[in-house]
Amino acid sequence: MSKERLIYLPLGGAGEIGMNAYVYGVGAPGKERLILVDLGVTFPDMDGTPGVDLIFPDIQWLAERRDRLEAVFITHAHEDHVGAVAHFYDRLGVPVFARAFTAHIARTKMEERGHAPQAVQTASPWPETVEAGPFRVGFVPISHSIPESSGLVIDTPLGRVVHSADFKMDRDPVVGEAFDEALWASLAEPGVLALACDSTNVFSPHEGRSESSLGPEIEALIAGAKGMFVATTFASNVARVKTLAEAAERCGRSVCLMGRAMRRMIEAAVETGVLTDFPRTIGPEDAKDLPRENLMLIVTGSQGERRAASAQLAQGKYNGIELKPGDTFLFSSKTIPGNERGVIRIMNQFSEMGVEVIDDSSGRYHVSGHANRPDLERLHRLIAPRAVVPMHGEHRHLREHVKLAKSNGFEGVLAPNGTMVALSDASPSVVDHVETGRVYLDGQVQVGALDGVVRDRIRMALNGHVLINVILDEEDEPLGEPWCEVRGLAETGSSRAPLVEVLEEDLSQFMGRAGAKTLADDDKLEEGLRKVARQTAISEIGKRPEVTVIISRLTE
Amino acid sequence: MSKERLIYLPLGGAGEIGMNAYVYGVGAPGKERLILVDLGVTFPDMDGTPGVDLIFPDIQWLAERRDRLEAVFITHAHEDHVGAVAHFYDRLGVPVFARAFTAHIARTKMEERGHAPQAVQTASPWPETVEAGPFRVGFVPISHSIPESSGLVIDTPLGRVVHSADFKMDRDPVVGEAFDEALWASLAEPGVLALACDSTNVFSPHEGRSESSLGPEIEALIAGAKGMFVATTFASNVARVKTLAEAAERCGRSVCLMGRAMRRMIEAAVETGVLTDFPRTIGPEDAKDLPRENLMLIVTGSQGERRAASAQLAQGKYNGIELKPGDTFLFSSKTIPGNERGVIRIMNQFSEMGVEVIDDSSGRYHVSGHANRPDLERLHRLIAPRAVVPMHGEHRHLREHVKLAKSNGFEGVLAPNGTMVALSDASPSVVDHVETGRVYLDGQVQVGALDGVVRDRIRMALNGHVLINVILDEEDEPLGEPWCEVRGLAETGSSRAPLVEVLEEDLSQFMGRAGAKTLADDDKLEEGLRKVARQTAISEIGKRPEVTVIISRLTE
Repeated sequence: MSKERLIYLPLGGAGEIGMNAYVYGVGAPGKERLILVDLGVTFPDMDGTPGVDLIFPDIQWLAERRDRLEAVFITHAHEDHVGAVAHFYDRLGVPVFARAFTAHIARTKMEERGHAPQAVQTASPWPETVEAGPFRVGFVPISHSIPESSGLVIDTPLGRVVHSADFKMDRDPVVGEAFDEALWASLAEPGVLALACDSTNVFSPHEGRSESSLGPEIEALIAGAKGMFVATTFASNVARVKTLAEAAERCGRSVCLMGRAMRRMIEAAVETGVLTDFPRTIGPEDAKDLPRENLMLIVTGSQGERRAASAQLAQGKYNGIELKPGDTFLFSSKTIPGNERGVIRIMNQFSEMGVEVIDDSSGRYHVSGHANRPDLERLHRLIAPRAVVPMHGEHRHLREHVKLAKSNGFEGVLAPNGTMVALSDASPSVVDHVETGRVYLDGQVQVGALDGVVRDRIRMALNGHVLINVILDEEDEPLGEPWCEVRGLAETGSSRAPLVEVLEEDLSQFMGRAGAKTLADDDKLEEGLRKVARQTAISEIGKRPEVTVIISRLTE
Repeated sequence: MSKERLIYLPLGGAGEIGMNAYVYGVGAPGKERLILVDLGVTFPDMDGTPGVDLIFPDIQWLAERRDRLEAVFITHAHEDHVGAVAHFYDRLGVPVFARAFTAHIARTKMEERGHAPQAVQTASPWPETVEAGPFRVGFVPISHSIPESSGLVIDTPLGRVVHSADFKMDRDPVVGEAFDEALWASLAEPGVLALACDSTNVFSPHEGRSESSLGPEIEALIAGAKGMFVATTFASNVARVKTLAEAAERCGRSVCLMGRAMRRMIEAAVETGVLTDFPRTIGPEDAKDLPRENLMLIVTGSQGERRAASAQLAQGKYNGIELKPGDTFLFSSKTIPGNERGVIRIMNQFSEMGVEVIDDSSGRYHVSGHANRPDLERLHRLIAPRAVVPMHGEHRHLREHVKLAKSNGFEGVLAPNGTMVALSDASPSVVDHVETGRVYLDGQVQVGALDGVVRDRIRMALNGHVLINVILDEEDEPLGEPWCEVRGLAETGSSRAPLVEVLEEDLSQFMGRAGAKTLADDDKLEEGLRKVARQTAISEIGKRPEVTVIISRLTE
């Protein structure tokens, strides 16, 4: 039997920011006992995944080895870490561990998909640990942009790994536990094989700022505003919501939370005890009756999401409240790359309404939840691992993070999704490559990213769609003329006649000259009709449409 | 007869960054003689305009008044200012004026669409002027990110307007004319009614930097690079291309230009005499044989465009050249909002290839072509107009620019697309609102933005498409079973049978129970079939697809 080893295998999150899913294993090669850290989603977009609801990592590799899987550990309640946990619970069939606030969110997800809430077990923070086969896992409090975020200490018979999870070094995070440098330094004492480390902000050169630095800035802004004041941020950024609400309160404004996710998060934070002293809020019904200058709305939709409160306010009324000239709207948030168009659309809608829009370009109304470059270096030094394994980043982030680690004398391991690394080797090395990918939640169905479903949608969107219907009798003779319908194509083209008529005419001519062999053969006939339809479309309107041919053969 | 007036009417460009088209008119209300300044395009995206090739302003208002139109003036050769000129030449039927370089580019466009190159007339710079009806228009050199950009002095019997066009205040622009403060100040002497002014960078708080500041930074970067060095920027930024090429030359590297647009722009600049002393370039064939460390490629595709040279290099070979670990790729450009996904995709592809990617986040390798906030204020003061009319910006930019003007004691007029302003009024006022909009070039056909063509494409992309085919005989009795095809939908849903089969079964049952009245009525039958198909799709896969029904009735 081969020597036992400790492996690391990202199935998602290493090569993108989103859908985190990191496997650790310990045991003889091919027989490792496994745990999974985080099981998140990523969000679709019109460019590549139109119509898709959510994107999951492909966990096929893990599902095929579920007999070796001990447990799932969730570091914090952001969707890219917890969002897929209920969707895959059946396929993995192991307990899920998280701290109280995260567990609360995860349980809601479980219940929504018909699972028992007991599927999620609440873990106490370090120095308490959870035993899972050969693993002993501790949740170490760390600051981030959601309450109770935790790094993990993963102890195994072969040594210790520290998994940073998403983090920043905030000594005064407003809500939740401050970054405790002494505590983190103490984790290094027995020696650490590897630090799997957040890479999101590796390109940000300056030390990160504390959440607590925002309160006075936001208060000054609100104090200077005349009409209604509205602010948006991520619903899960409970500390920010508190900062905003307290600033409003100090300015004599009543606070109204809008958007389901916002209210849910705050309720979860209060219920689990992580949020205390939150200013009293009022409902939209009461808000309507208040003078505008005494009101502060805190709303969902910082990323321009079409159905969120901010988008609805930008288009008119929401919950009976309507913005007016002289009101102020604050984006207390960063626009995630790719969401610019949606955010800018809303900004311009507000501008058209005469609403003052303020974003984060001044740097005064938002701080990031992730550690910047100098903070990453500091964590490397605190943990002093044998190797730094960058995670939670696009490929360019991982690559830069490896360079950063090496520049400080640490070994750096570039391990994008599907790369299995033996962390227990004297010099951690890639020992295998595993097929990874994406699975789409489309409506209520999971669809493989390579199944062609979404590819067909994109093609229809780019090229339009021509439908052709022909009917033949028992002798393979055409019955009537071919019939055409078009979707997503110009009505008329170069010949100035309706495109459908030109298509039907050309298809009819084709049918007329087609030989008996073609007419008798569905494949040949379909190919011929498709070719004619495309040629006609190209010459009429300069487009090469998708074509669907339906051939009906009457038999008696 | 009413008093004569001088009007301003943006048909595009005021409410977006793109498709600039500004009308000026002078004369009795409703009888003004007109000129058009710029006639540009904007670019489609998958979110809102999938499959579209170009977006034009809707010039219907102007086309209906072409008997009053004197001429079109093009300020510079960027696509958002010149791109639509050949597409609308027939509909407007008036001469087009531009300076030599811009005219060269515009003529190429005319020829490509079958128009005579004489359609474009070359204008000499100020103090020369072009007479067009009651207008006398002068092209005043101003610095921007393309050669021979010009502001316009528009003199009329009712007074002078200054149209800034796109500009920055660059005293050393590397290529083309420097910003000449004395010249611009002199334009103010007779008094200026209005300054129509670029708003792009109104949110940028610091004074703009000169193009000439980049050379030493870029040279230092190239000098430190080991493998091949590749840089991308806008092809039309001739000064930048020169800066890059000269830096390469100083580092002992041969320069190879890649991408059709890049070569075309440089050729146009050389031919028209605006570019001199450009380093000798080599072709891709020769480049292949050079040692990597002696080569510099300057390529198209700074915005992540899928077919441009940079995207192709990121995916493999282009013109026989392939990047390797240790090579460097520089984005000497800013990512235009909305293009982030495409640019980041390329960055990560290069990262996977082991290529060092450098972008503009340090601020050292790119300067903007537009005037920042302090520069805008400076131009306001130089021209000292009765009113500042912000243009070339989204609504939020126009709004902020009005505030900026007012804060300095100028009248500011907020005039988004379709707003007709009487500039000759003592206090410029909005006198009319005109219907404006967008027209899509889709393949070779122009399609109205509200025609529903693109809406149908988006719906197919979001919802998928079900096609239903039923055949009925002379007595309105179904012949055979309904036939279904699906595109862009999951193959199987909740019942685990193929979706197509479940659909056909449910549709067949519907046909079986449909009464004679329904079977005889195409509309009723179609509605019924569509409803059943949607219900089935919702319960099977949780999606509400687009449905096309084809009913064939056999008659003899």
